[in-house]
Amino acid sequence: MASGSSSICGIGHLQKECYYEWMRTQSKHIVDLKEVLMSQRSNAYDHHKLEELVGRIVNDFQNYADKRSELADRSCSSYFAPSWNSSLENGLLWMGGCRPSSFMRIIYALCGSHAETQLSQYLLKMDGEVVDGHDGDSSMSELNATQLAKINDLHVEVIDKEDKLSKLSANMQEDVADMPIAVTAFSRDSVEADVAVEDALDKHEEGMAVLIADADKLRLETLKKIVEVLTPVQAAEFLLSGKRLHVSLHEWGRVREERRFGCARAEDAAAARGGAGKSKRSATC
Amino acid sequence: MASGSSSICGIGHLQKECYYEWMRTQSKHIVDLKEVLMSQRSNAYDHHKLEELVGRIVNDFQNYADKRSELADRSCSSYFAPSWNSSLENGLLWMGGCRPSSFMRIIYALCGSHAETQLSQYLLKMDGEVVDGHDGDSSMSELNATQLAKINDLHVEVIDKEDKLSKLSANMQEDVADMPIAVTAFSRDSVEADVAVEDALDKHEEGMAVLIADADKLRLETLKKIVEVLTPVQAAEFLLSGKRLHVSLHEWGRVREERRFGCARAEDAAAARGGAGKSKRSATC
Repeated sequence: MASGSSSICGIGHLQKECYYEWMRTQSKHIVDLKEVLMSQRSNAYDHHKLEELVGRIVNDFQNYADKRSELADRSCSSYFAPSWNSSLENGLLWMGGCRPSSFMRIIYALCGSHAETQLSQYLLKMDGEVVDGHDGDSSMSELNATQLAKINDLHVEVIDKEDKLSKLSANMQEDVADMPIAVTAFSRDSVEADVAVEDALDKHEEGMAVLIADADKLRLETLKKIVEVLTPVQAAEFLLSGKRLHVSLHEWGRVREERRFGCARAEDAAAARGGAGKSKRSATC
Repeated sequence: MASGSSSICGIGHLQKECYYEWMRTQSKHIVDLKEVLMSQRSNAYDHHKLEELVGRIVNDFQNYADKRSELADRSCSSYFAPSWNSSLENGLLWMGGCRPSSFMRIIYALCGSHAETQLSQYLLKMDGEVVDGHDGDSSMSELNATQLAKINDLHVEVIDKEDKLSKLSANMQEDVADMPIAVTAFSRDSVEADVAVEDALDKHEEGMAVLIADADKLRLETLKKIVEVLTPVQAAEFLLSGKRLHVSLHEWGRVREERRFGCARAEDAAAARGGAGKSKRSATC
């Protein structure tokens, strides 16, 4: 059974390929980040290597955003609900990607989780029980007050910028129910689009492509600012958790959809095995 | 070539059928509205019939929203980017449907367009040229100051309610990057979801289904309030233009996608011909 995405040719195919290439790059990032964090724990820590890796990952995101923006200029609408995403992921989309404010939530979640683990380890130690040091090795719980304050300020700033972009998007959506589109739809019996409508829809899509580029810029800018606030080890942990969350949500969404709808999307499943799905193997190796 | 939507079985199939049934109902509404508006212009106007039709259309929307809400309770994510929509339509979606504030924009567009037509007709009459009375017969330009003020107040109120729902949705999206989801993704090598993650994702989807139901409630409530402000003839014109806009956008999006991607989504095209596409014939008959 072929998937709908199989019938998307040309630009749609390029967009999908661009996404799967990014997922493969992220799988490589996960392996590299794990390796460097493991070496840090085993005292074979190379500060320079870690900083170089974090810089490269941020740079890779910039390259992906540039490529995506170029493809969005040619056809932008597909980025608002990509065929390669599960419904779960599309329900989580904001301007064709994740909310930049969710980066901060990942940091808070990791901080809280590590603080909790440390507390329970402390209590277990008091009871003389053996402790598995895995989470205790994390440096995210060592985020100091100055760092947390900076992350909080950034959170507020980013939410404000997100709101502004959401407002612009809402206005653009409303504009479609204005002249000439609504009036043409009303005044003509035929549902064929005339030149005025085609021009208005082209203009609408161009505006949406600019919005996606602005949102990608905000995502990248937020990522860079977070990395500046964190130590290189913390930055590596943060990037690792963000990438694992993305890869996991892609897989969880696919599995839930398969289970719920009682049948698989064959091509996506194959792509997941051969493309982004490699992340599954990479993540487990 | 089969479409991806063809591989969505069970609940997905029911959701798609529910949507196409609604599109068929809307096509019937378009024919009925045109008929009653034509009879009004030819002095065979039946006030009671018009009011009954407007009431029935609002009621049909209520029934559709109820059915959709029931299906969203069983699987909600698909409503955020339905496979039966074109990318253009999915890019315009707000909480699984149109923005209720766009209803007001339709009214403003019709008012403006009719006022413009009346002015040009007046100028043409001054020049002694023949005038086609089609648009001049519209009653939307006769919206009085009290009605316009009420529509304006409603617009402000609706935008405020939309913003509140958008905020709730943003919070829910951010919550996914929190415990236990983010922490599970970070702390485990396997991308398989555990019970805590499955529960959290179920809870997330339940919350999103409530949001869609609230958004549908706002759409319906707004529709009812607008119909109360308008005269029955104005209400019929407003409903006709909203339905034509929906049907046209569905068709325009499909055609643009076909042209851009260089190949058709065969099943959707067939469904459009047999299902929602009937609206094309209905709209042209």
